[in-house]
Amino acid sequence: MTERQPSYIIGLDFGSESARGALIDVETGAEVAAHVHAYPHGIMDECLAGGTLLPPAWSLQDAGDYTAAARAILKALGQGRRVLSIGLDFTASSPLPVTTDGTPLSIHHPDAPHAYVKLYKHQAAQPHAITLSAAHGERFSHFGGRISGEWLIAKAAQMHAEAPTLWAETARFIEGGDWMVWQLTGDEQRSYGFATYKAQYSPETGYPDDLVEGLGERLSPPLPVGQSAGLLSQAWLTESGIVGPCTVAVAVIDSHVVLPAVGAVGGGTFVGALGTSAAYLMLSERFQPLPEGIEGVARDSSLPGLWCYEAGQPSFGDCLGWFVRNFSNSGDLASGFARLNAEAEALRPGEGRLLALDWWNGNRVPHGDAALSGLLIGPTRKTTQAEIYRALMEGLCFGARHVFDLMRDGGLEIGRVLMTSGLAERNPFLVQMMADVFDCQVEVPVIRNASCVGAAIHGAVAAGVVADFNEGAARFGAREFTCYTPRPDAAATYQRLYAIFRRLSADTTLREAMHALCALEN
Amino acid sequence: MTERQPSYIIGLDFGSESARGALIDVETGAEVAAHVHAYPHGIMDECLAGGTLLPPAWSLQDAGDYTAAARAILKALGQGRRVLSIGLDFTASSPLPVTTDGTPLSIHHPDAPHAYVKLYKHQAAQPHAITLSAAHGERFSHFGGRISGEWLIAKAAQMHAEAPTLWAETARFIEGGDWMVWQLTGDEQRSYGFATYKAQYSPETGYPDDLVEGLGERLSPPLPVGQSAGLLSQAWLTESGIVGPCTVAVAVIDSHVVLPAVGAVGGGTFVGALGTSAAYLMLSERFQPLPEGIEGVARDSSLPGLWCYEAGQPSFGDCLGWFVRNFSNSGDLASGFARLNAEAEALRPGEGRLLALDWWNGNRVPHGDAALSGLLIGPTRKTTQAEIYRALMEGLCFGARHVFDLMRDGGLEIGRVLMTSGLAERNPFLVQMMADVFDCQVEVPVIRNASCVGAAIHGAVAAGVVADFNEGAARFGAREFTCYTPRPDAAATYQRLYAIFRRLSADTTLREAMHALCALEN
Repeated sequence: MTERQPSYIIGLDFGSESARGALIDVETGAEVAAHVHAYPHGIMDECLAGGTLLPPAWSLQDAGDYTAAARAILKALGQGRRVLSIGLDFTASSPLPVTTDGTPLSIHHPDAPHAYVKLYKHQAAQPHAITLSAAHGERFSHFGGRISGEWLIAKAAQMHAEAPTLWAETARFIEGGDWMVWQLTGDEQRSYGFATYKAQYSPETGYPDDLVEGLGERLSPPLPVGQSAGLLSQAWLTESGIVGPCTVAVAVIDSHVVLPAVGAVGGGTFVGALGTSAAYLMLSERFQPLPEGIEGVARDSSLPGLWCYEAGQPSFGDCLGWFVRNFSNSGDLASGFARLNAEAEALRPGEGRLLALDWWNGNRVPHGDAALSGLLIGPTRKTTQAEIYRALMEGLCFGARHVFDLMRDGGLEIGRVLMTSGLAERNPFLVQMMADVFDCQVEVPVIRNASCVGAAIHGAVAAGVVADFNEGAARFGAREFTCYTPRPDAAATYQRLYAIFRRLSADTTLREAMHALCALEN
Repeated sequence: MTERQPSYIIGLDFGSESARGALIDVETGAEVAAHVHAYPHGIMDECLAGGTLLPPAWSLQDAGDYTAAARAILKALGQGRRVLSIGLDFTASSPLPVTTDGTPLSIHHPDAPHAYVKLYKHQAAQPHAITLSAAHGERFSHFGGRISGEWLIAKAAQMHAEAPTLWAETARFIEGGDWMVWQLTGDEQRSYGFATYKAQYSPETGYPDDLVEGLGERLSPPLPVGQSAGLLSQAWLTESGIVGPCTVAVAVIDSHVVLPAVGAVGGGTFVGALGTSAAYLMLSERFQPLPEGIEGVARDSSLPGLWCYEAGQPSFGDCLGWFVRNFSNSGDLASGFARLNAEAEALRPGEGRLLALDWWNGNRVPHGDAALSGLLIGPTRKTTQAEIYRALMEGLCFGARHVFDLMRDGGLEIGRVLMTSGLAERNPFLVQMMADVFDCQVEVPVIRNASCVGAAIHGAVAAGVVADFNEGAARFGAREFTCYTPRPDAAATYQRLYAIFRRLSADTTLREAMHALCALEN
């Protein structure tokens, strides 16, 4: 009897500062190795490597960092191994201009800022987004009636306006994730994920390519996610030592890639990713007109055959971090968090008679207004640190509940609520509060490197290693879920607090006051 | 040539925990000695000296403590000296039940809580105040259309309802200040100060004596302030060693007695006393119908011939203290205050883009609503401790400006603004901010023991030592004033912030949210 020859799948997660890869044994479903590679140039927001200074609000990357990371990770994980597939996810929207053969313009013009990748957090295209939204908002009904300055179209508009010569040299304007797939396979194959959510592509009408002169010819039709974009090229097989053939999947937006890893593969699933900010994804088999305040919706872009609605809170964990860092009297952040979390948990819901609006970094749902700011109502001379900390956390949960309600009130059926991320795993107090505020069961999947695992499942589906995402999720995704059940007393109190939260959120006088504060010169 | 025989005046200030006396040389106007005597029983809010437990919200004193303090102070200051007059001020409303000869009922019933002085901060009569205000509010147009639970009428109603036998034994129900004058002279002579502001007396209609059965016969007509209530009795002359004759003045409410000491003796003067809470007094020669939100007005009750309007902020310095104590990360309170004050002063007005409503202990002007609570609007993830501290201080100044505006918009002419108290003397940053927010000059009188000096001036006027309060203020009151002039840039920014403050203060949704938070059970 010959020894079984093990085979593997790899998931690659291209983040803001580094890329991470995970190697998964197809037979056991277990992650057997992982590797992280930091980008040599990191995020360039002050100057280029050559010293060229950048204006404020710029945020660039060097595409060569992505290939360098891929090289290091694939060699570390794949050398001498039979790897059936690679899936990858990428930050979005992070587009770059390239020549016909995919060479980044930054190779030819190392001192030209517009030749580099404009990272998702690059804010300097915002004026173009505002102009385009004002002129063409009615065409973006799937995206809240507006274009964000973070999206590809606004970034193309900025380049076209500010660097016309470089724009003329640009054969393709392409998302970093799609470009990475092109590098691995040798073929340009774009993803529905980026095309729909970040370039407002739809299968019926294509790209809105009349908004920026020449943009249409610099894009190409995308493929639904979960499909093969081609095979890993001979050059990469040789360099990495991977034993092929190895299928490379269509790329996926980083915030969407976790879905199959956390078991969210069916309609009716509401998934929250609770981090520095919070992102919510709602899967649906049916299309409903976009509920008020929800930011985007597309089909075949997160998982094949499903609509995925997107919404978010621009400040989440960082709001709590702000409070602990600035006001907790604690020596270090970790002990401050631990103490306040424990003290806040010892309070009863509503005991502090405080309420916060979670707008510390503006509000996306329902107002889509970055000029809004935080609110704390109810403090007295007896209010404690722990009461404010708890009120901030409750405000975050009420903001999440507002997203949840808009989805449900918009006609989407929600059968299951998942909360993912390290914060959700580390802070059962927070997730119990979510369950109480939502008044429904909340599950937290127990899984390491969920993004890499999700990317690997995309690869496995694309390669036919598994029949579909259901099987992929079952074999490689989370196997344990921690369940939080709402407590009736807490839920009743939160129902009353949430009603106050909604009235304050709808109060025009408050928002006008925030605008007036924001507009103060000094 | 014989040596000049010096003569003196004495001012007595009966506070919450102790009484203080000051001896002033009539010739030089200088304070030559002061003496403090703590009340042996202090404030009784948990049990009586004999062990009887008190219900929540009770706050009592033993009248014997007042005479003990007076004895010690008059002996220390007056023995062997020619003292022409004694004036005194007292907390208000702090009434007690006595027999026909002035003996406190607590002498006969030491274990009966209702036999003692109900201190101004005794809150247990509030239900009676609410009932009386609802039934008879229209009769109290000079007092905001309501009776406070802190006032004599509500305290009489509580005693009548809860201790009818003791009430039957009560020959006189009398303010502590009037009782103290009675003790010193041997004659009952009440003061307009207490009678008007705390028992809603008016010269035209007398006391509203039909509200509590039998109350009318337990009161007696008052005298305007600045008059003689009689001479210090032979017994007190003997015991103290004072060389008489010595005139005792009609008693004065403690918050009003400072007026002549700080030079506020004419119409058109707005005086703020900035302490833990803040009290505002506005002197006027003419009567105007009570401006909206102003709490009380009476004539001949603070200074003869003048109307005095009363208003206040229930939380002032204690709001800043709350923040420093709980959120400043500082070792001790004093260094926390010093650091935050310096950091906040280094900011420009409006720089933090924050605003606070100063309702940390409810709001008196304009809402008269103890169930209101604080509000902080505008925080972001970049907001600092110093920015919040400054916003709280600005909120206090905006609250003060609101009082000021209501007086002025109500038709009162304001020619001069004075801010008194230790806080005003110690914190030039705060007073400069007041001047910028008010957009007018603010003066801070430099004076020690202003209450005692003010009481002494009342005595001097009553005894004819000086012709009137103008002369009394000139000879014995503050001689130096620190002047703060508004800075145009700051005043312009504060004008915009104050407009936002007023809109938020008027926002019904906010106040309903505060009521809903206050009403939460848990």
